[in-house]
Amino acid sequence: MSGLHEECGVFGIWSPNNSPLAETVYYGLYALQHRGQEGCGIAVCEDGVISAHKDIGLVGEVFDHSSLAQLPCGNMAVGHVRYSTTGGNERRNCQPIVVNHMKGRMAVAHNGNLSNAYELRRELELSGAIFHTTSDTETIAYIITKQRLVKPSIEEAVLASMDIIEGAYSLVVMSPTKLIAVRDPHGFRPLCFGKLPDGSYAVSSESCGLTAIGAEFVRDIEAGEMVIFSSNGVRSVKTHCNTKPKQVCIFEYIYFARPDSVIDGISVHKARLRAGRILAESCPAEADIVIGVPDSGLDAALGFSQASGIPYGIGLIKNKYIGRTFISPTQSSRTDKVRIKLSAVSETVRGKRVVLVDDSIVRGTTGGRIVSLLREAGAKEIHFRVSAPPFLHPCYYGTDIDSEKDLIACHRTPEEIAAQMGADSLGYLPAERLGELIGSDDCCKACFNGVYPTAVPKNAVKDKYEMKLTPPKGE
Amino acid sequence: MSGLHEECGVFGIWSPNNSPLAETVYYGLYALQHRGQEGCGIAVCEDGVISAHKDIGLVGEVFDHSSLAQLPCGNMAVGHVRYSTTGGNERRNCQPIVVNHMKGRMAVAHNGNLSNAYELRRELELSGAIFHTTSDTETIAYIITKQRLVKPSIEEAVLASMDIIEGAYSLVVMSPTKLIAVRDPHGFRPLCFGKLPDGSYAVSSESCGLTAIGAEFVRDIEAGEMVIFSSNGVRSVKTHCNTKPKQVCIFEYIYFARPDSVIDGISVHKARLRAGRILAESCPAEADIVIGVPDSGLDAALGFSQASGIPYGIGLIKNKYIGRTFISPTQSSRTDKVRIKLSAVSETVRGKRVVLVDDSIVRGTTGGRIVSLLREAGAKEIHFRVSAPPFLHPCYYGTDIDSEKDLIACHRTPEEIAAQMGADSLGYLPAERLGELIGSDDCCKACFNGVYPTAVPKNAVKDKYEMKLTPPKGE
Amino acid sequence: MSGLHEECGVFGIWSPNNSPLAETVYYGLYALQHRGQEGCGIAVCEDGVISAHKDIGLVGEVFDHSSLAQLPCGNMAVGHVRYSTTGGNERRNCQPIVVNHMKGRMAVAHNGNLSNAYELRRELELSGAIFHTTSDTETIAYIITKQRLVKPSIEEAVLASMDIIEGAYSLVVMSPTKLIAVRDPHGFRPLCFGKLPDGSYAVSSESCGLTAIGAEFVRDIEAGEMVIFSSNGVRSVKTHCNTKPKQVCIFEYIYFARPDSVIDGISVHKARLRAGRILAESCPAEADIVIGVPDSGLDAALGFSQASGIPYGIGLIKNKYIGRTFISPTQSSRTDKVRIKLSAVSETVRGKRVVLVDDSIVRGTTGGRIVSLLREAGAKEIHFRVSAPPFLHPCYYGTDIDSEKDLIACHRTPEEIAAQMGADSLGYLPAERLGELIGSDDCCKACFNGVYPTAVPKNAVKDKYEMKLTPPKGE
Amino acid sequence: MSGLHEECGVFGIWSPNNSPLAETVYYGLYALQHRGQEGCGIAVCEDGVISAHKDIGLVGEVFDHSSLAQLPCGNMAVGHVRYSTTGGNERRNCQPIVVNHMKGRMAVAHNGNLSNAYELRRELELSGAIFHTTSDTETIAYIITKQRLVKPSIEEAVLASMDIIEGAYSLVVMSPTKLIAVRDPHGFRPLCFGKLPDGSYAVSSESCGLTAIGAEFVRDIEAGEMVIFSSNGVRSVKTHCNTKPKQVCIFEYIYFARPDSVIDGISVHKARLRAGRILAESCPAEADIVIGVPDSGLDAALGFSQASGIPYGIGLIKNKYIGRTFISPTQSSRTDKVRIKLSAVSETVRGKRVVLVDDSIVRGTTGGRIVSLLREAGAKEIHFRVSAPPFLHPCYYGTDIDSEKDLIACHRTPEEIAAQMGADSLGYLPAERLGELIGSDDCCKACFNGVYPTAVPKNAVKDKYEMKLTPPKGE
Repeated sequence: MSGLHEECGVFGIWSPNNSPLAETVYYGLYALQHRGQEGCGIAVCEDGVISAHKDIGLVGEVFDHSSLAQLPCGNMAVGHVRYSTTGGNERRNCQPIVVNHMKGRMAVAHNGNLSNAYELRRELELSGAIFHTTSDTETIAYIITKQRLVKPSIEEAVLASMDIIEGAYSLVVMSPTKLIAVRDPHGFRPLCFGKLPDGSYAVSSESCGLTAIGAEFVRDIEAGEMVIFSSNGVRSVKTHCNTKPKQVCIFEYIYFARPDSVIDGISVHKARLRAGRILAESCPAEADIVIGVPDSGLDAALGFSQASGIPYGIGLIKNKYIGRTFISPTQSSRTDKVRIKLSAVSETVRGKRVVLVDDSIVRGTTGGRIVSLLREAGAKEIHFRVSAPPFLHPCYYGTDIDSEKDLIACHRTPEEIAAQMGADSLGYLPAERLGELIGSDDCCKACFNGVYPTAVPKNAVKDKYEMKLTPPKGE
Repeated sequence: MSGLHEECGVFGIWSPNNSPLAETVYYGLYALQHRGQEGCGIAVCEDGVISAHKDIGLVGEVFDHSSLAQLPCGNMAVGHVRYSTTGGNERRNCQPIVVNHMKGRMAVAHNGNLSNAYELRRELELSGAIFHTTSDTETIAYIITKQRLVKPSIEEAVLASMDIIEGAYSLVVMSPTKLIAVRDPHGFRPLCFGKLPDGSYAVSSESCGLTAIGAEFVRDIEAGEMVIFSSNGVRSVKTHCNTKPKQVCIFEYIYFARPDSVIDGISVHKARLRAGRILAESCPAEADIVIGVPDSGLDAALGFSQASGIPYGIGLIKNKYIGRTFISPTQSSRTDKVRIKLSAVSETVRGKRVVLVDDSIVRGTTGGRIVSLLREAGAKEIHFRVSAPPFLHPCYYGTDIDSEKDLIACHRTPEEIAAQMGADSLGYLPAERLGELIGSDDCCKACFNGVYPTAVPKNAVKDKYEMKLTPPKGE
Repeated sequence: MSGLHEECGVFGIWSPNNSPLAETVYYGLYALQHRGQEGCGIAVCEDGVISAHKDIGLVGEVFDHSSLAQLPCGNMAVGHVRYSTTGGNERRNCQPIVVNHMKGRMAVAHNGNLSNAYELRRELELSGAIFHTTSDTETIAYIITKQRLVKPSIEEAVLASMDIIEGAYSLVVMSPTKLIAVRDPHGFRPLCFGKLPDGSYAVSSESCGLTAIGAEFVRDIEAGEMVIFSSNGVRSVKTHCNTKPKQVCIFEYIYFARPDSVIDGISVHKARLRAGRILAESCPAEADIVIGVPDSGLDAALGFSQASGIPYGIGLIKNKYIGRTFISPTQSSRTDKVRIKLSAVSETVRGKRVVLVDDSIVRGTTGGRIVSLLREAGAKEIHFRVSAPPFLHPCYYGTDIDSEKDLIACHRTPEEIAAQMGADSLGYLPAERLGELIGSDDCCKACFNGVYPTAVPKNAVKDKYEMKLTPPKGE
Repeated sequence: MSGLHEECGVFGIWSPNNSPLAETVYYGLYALQHRGQEGCGIAVCEDGVISAHKDIGLVGEVFDHSSLAQLPCGNMAVGHVRYSTTGGNERRNCQPIVVNHMKGRMAVAHNGNLSNAYELRRELELSGAIFHTTSDTETIAYIITKQRLVKPSIEEAVLASMDIIEGAYSLVVMSPTKLIAVRDPHGFRPLCFGKLPDGSYAVSSESCGLTAIGAEFVRDIEAGEMVIFSSNGVRSVKTHCNTKPKQVCIFEYIYFARPDSVIDGISVHKARLRAGRILAESCPAEADIVIGVPDSGLDAALGFSQASGIPYGIGLIKNKYIGRTFISPTQSSRTDKVRIKLSAVSETVRGKRVVLVDDSIVRGTTGGRIVSLLREAGAKEIHFRVSAPPFLHPCYYGTDIDSEKDLIACHRTPEEIAAQMGADSLGYLPAERLGELIGSDDCCKACFNGVYPTAVPKNAVKDKYEMKLTPPKGE
């Protein structure tokens, strides 16, 4: 409900034998679907030849029996789910990107955002490169290709590329013979791998992707680590580990990741319970019941209940059928979109003082509507608690956080926001206690405190590559 | 997850002015989608002319901008969501059924199952009637049509039909000038109506459909009552009320209805909390945590926790993207469908004695897989609790309960079922306490205790009208 | 190009063994596609159980691998291609109609139009019948069903129905055990059957459907004849033959049928050659070249050339890719639809006096545009010749001829029409010579001379069943 | 019917004002659809920003109201229809190719085949280039991009590229401000332009594309010429004209082009009539009737008739509904694909000695089936005449002629082929008289005589870029 979007999930598999890997990736992507709902794709490598299918849409829309069956059996495959700007004809931006170069074909799937993407692309263009997409992933593919010309192997080329690209990247690269997983030295985005009973290995943005396909979790890939899966076994290269401070995105724990995932050893569910407990301590409320906004506010609501002793209740129901094809009510309609997506359980809130826990407030509009639903259902008081600090700064590492002008917390005090939403009180998670969620301060909190782990990109707007397409002067 | 299916939801709207009612019905059907996911339809009446669009699929699949726009504005509309047997080419069975007869056109939407459908149909056929569908709804349309020939109005025809048809029926009938809502004298299935700010009236299977479109709940339609909405206002006819014992389906509360709905004055959420509490009393367990199988087991799990004092936890996550287009793993695949739909939160269950609450056990297969998931995630003990009694008898009133041969409870003791599923113990809600859920014993519990409120149909198999289509002898 | 539409084609097959008949019908319907492009369907009978798939669209759109594969193997099948009014949601009107009645299931496919349909339907409604469609075919199904109740067999019921229904009907009826082909006593529409090497029999509106599937043409079904295909072999019943004057539609030869078809012993191609020859005699022109409007004007153009000695040329090319999905130019566009569909071969017409042969003029608009195309391409003179007489009267037997107000020949002399189209002269086939096309005057020429073989229907508008759906007074 | 495929058609438009050009290109592509039926696309330039939509399928499949409406109004647009190898997931190979480079965005549409494509691509890859497609067009886009870095304008870059690329290319290139049309110095493929009443200019592979949109034909673009359309008017650059011998593909006249097109001043229809006349002289036959295989054999058949005095007849009818969605009969089926596509008109051929004219024989299979159809229909003798010489050599300039092993003429004498097809005689157009078709010998006849105007490519197989994608040794 929050209007925030992660920008991708990646998945890969290497198998000792040719098998129907596309199907396995399909299930892995279903588990990662929450990381990107606007496009997806699967590329399979069969005897060194890479075939792919990708398109705009959910996994269940892009892949049907026929499109899955058209992908060959193989011994490696890569998958991707993507969030992108809405509208437009953006099929070409779907991933994995599959390119041909000097040494054959290569598939690349990427989660993250480069902070020096614009400069790198400009430089490539000056050498005559042409780009088919407007995504960073094509830039990464170019950099690796250029390095491959002067390096003896694809893994050497990837390693050399890590010295060039900056920012957030969890990558799965598939060459004709190797599957390579890389996580950037800051470790902004998660990446882990597991093992299957038949000797296959799977790489996934989150551990829930491994569980879904019946793989045993082996371990997280470290910040800066490269892991190579091939017929020579599993090989780890750690030359780029510990070259930069660890900065895993704290918002992965608060919102993006699935609660059953474990990232860098910390359970996402547990981090959210802790967020709820901290909230109960730092922003207590006199109340009769604690309810969460489904789905991502439920864990923190439970934590709040546990720490405060106020009973936990089921106060809001989410309509599970609202999907991409849902037609939003027109402005003229008397119907309200939030009312169709969420409904209040009167029995739970009638006549009660309610603590309402959500994971974020972006513009405050949805929050205000939820407050109204609860008032209609008879809630006496509504104490809004947010299991994250206020958003104050843009993210350059793969999250689609609105521009500052749309972030309500940049312009209003909590009291003003509470009043606007019609809540009796509003409390945020204190930014200084964020580290407690994961028991460490080695995390990126830039969107909350403005402290960026890398140089801030000069040209950071989403459509940075589109902008210069207007006619160049003097031509 | 339970494999049980309600067989329909109905929705209707009457408006004093021509307006885009198809859109309103669309949102109403979204709220009722849980009552039927295999087909849906909307019929609109504009100046006495009825147009309809219906097809196999979810509301969001059958209706897009274009199909909604093709339906005219009107002053009445009827909608339907349907569950039907899988497979086959069953588009023709979608509702509302729209038929032409002597007095013009009529649309009928039906939730329920007639217990004398076969006899009525046979009789009609003997008089030369032809049937395009295999649903009871066409039989009802025929009966009303026949009565209409000898009665002065459509409402008189409907009333007369109520003396002929038997069993479960919550109907919305639309004639060129009137919208008529009827609930059978037993009141098996729910039906209620509400009012909109502009003077429109809406009828819905459940109150959640009214809330979704911003209508104010007025009241439940009584068992045996007919309510007529027309330019003459709202008129209630109660000649058939109290002619038969009230028998609302108790499983509506346990499983079918949405927890935010209120049926016959009783909150569904509250009934489920009570089921959990009764379970805690009658089948207690020594445990560290109580978890529910999402979505319908959560309320009872919370009730169990409240009554037992054992903490409530979030132990299972449901993948919200699995829909109709999901391709189930092939038998040969190592992937397990339950594993993709549900995943365990290790943090919650690791090393714990777990009470697991679900709303039903049909065949025991899914339950067994869930137990496995929790074991893998580290659960030490698993005490399976079911918020309903064991299914022992077929339902003839609109629920698709498996035949007795597939109902595990007909052949196994709870201990045997627990062993088969790998659970440490298994407890069911005692059938004799079902009435406590709604504070009254005026409910149908036939699937649990075999006491049927009507004569049992002689030919009750699902495909009863299909069966006789084999070549008649002697022709 | 003419704007005229035949309203259907029927196809049936009976096989001694269960086989994939849906595929065979699919190819048969492809050959009959010119008789109806707006909808189609196939019903298969497997051991007495009838399954069907039908929808709006061309054969190649409605049937794909998956929908064909869903139809079972069987020993009988019926197919239909349909022309219907444009727009609206008319899927329900697609055929074959499959109904359940007292004796099992029945499929009916119909080409033609009843002249007493309205009265029959009214009578059925008065007895309580309900109608799902607005097509005559459902009325026919009802009549047969009613008769079946009192007759010992389906063929007796069909025979009895022939005494009740009037007008044009070429029917294929499939009961659980028999495939029955019937042609009305006037023989308005064609119908024939053939035999396959494996002992199967096929019924088709035109002989081209038999040729397409490799069947050997056996013979035309006579006007008034019923032929029954079953495990008892092929049986013909001629009780209704010669009860009414033979009146095959002459426009089948002029326009509707495929030139490679042979109807009632007369080659369609030959009839068109003769039309061209008669035109050359009755409306000669001083010219350098004769060209036809493709496709249906080509044969008559060749005949004109042969009779007149003026060389035949290829002067117009038809774009073979324009289909149902073609988006017509908007009014504001500078593009002209005729220009995209047809183009002139300058080489052929430049500087020449051209005889242009088309099969009909309905409104004169298209003809005028074709004249313009030829002028642009350099034609010096254009002598328009029509291989049919002027349309002056509506058709009640299955052809969609515009109402008189739109028929240009009702309001303009040939000279005026020539002037309006920009042609140098205009000549029609003399109505009195129509019989020469087929060597007999036993044909229906009602649209040209107003002499109708049956009573003229009182309520003959296309949407006759829609009209009464407005609210009946007094209700 | 011949199994031969042209590999593309290009279309472009420049307008002085922003207007809905996508619609105009749509109609232009419909006229060029015969040049490529496997994919198509349109790119529009609006204020220097290029948007595109392209996909696999026919124009009428890829573009619907919605996809056309999503393309903006603009002042330039480029379109493409494509033939490609069947099967596979080749959406990425559709054109126009739209790329971003240093100077903005560029769209390229290409008809032809480079003879040095493999070498050029190899060289680019050695400099680090990555390729998303396997088509020559991307190589051309790269070459132009590289040149653009060192040249002051896009037209200078295109001119410089003409010194680098070799072989057949008719290109339309769209920069943010200019529309550029180029034809290779040999002039293998046609290209022409026309003017619209509103001052717009259109470029088209064939003149029929201009006629379709109501443009006045201005002239052919010369071999080696570049024409630039921009706000500075129309500018022609002829520096590359007359640098190489003119070698227009003679098979454009015989088969590929539409008969209403005029290429390099010669009517295609007239060239085919001449082919028929030459055939009548060089391979006469004693016969009663001359018929052509529709559509492309009809013109030559008419020429044969004119020269021989044997009457012209309509002996074969083509089913105009067989399209891409047609499901070919399975091997096991008794149905024959040719029989569904083509049918004989018995009336025309029965008891006759028939001259059958087709434009080519590739494998002889289809020809044999057609001969059978005519025999069944009663033809007494069949004299097969081919309006082209035998195919003996592969084409490297944009035609998909089978490899020599599949070309029947490489392995059989005409007598043997006639015998195999069941024909009474077989005659080909003499290769030495090909020039007479267009009144000049400045044409490429390489597929007939093996004389190639350029160096023969070393790696000329269709999937030359796919082949090297197998794992490189030593990695």
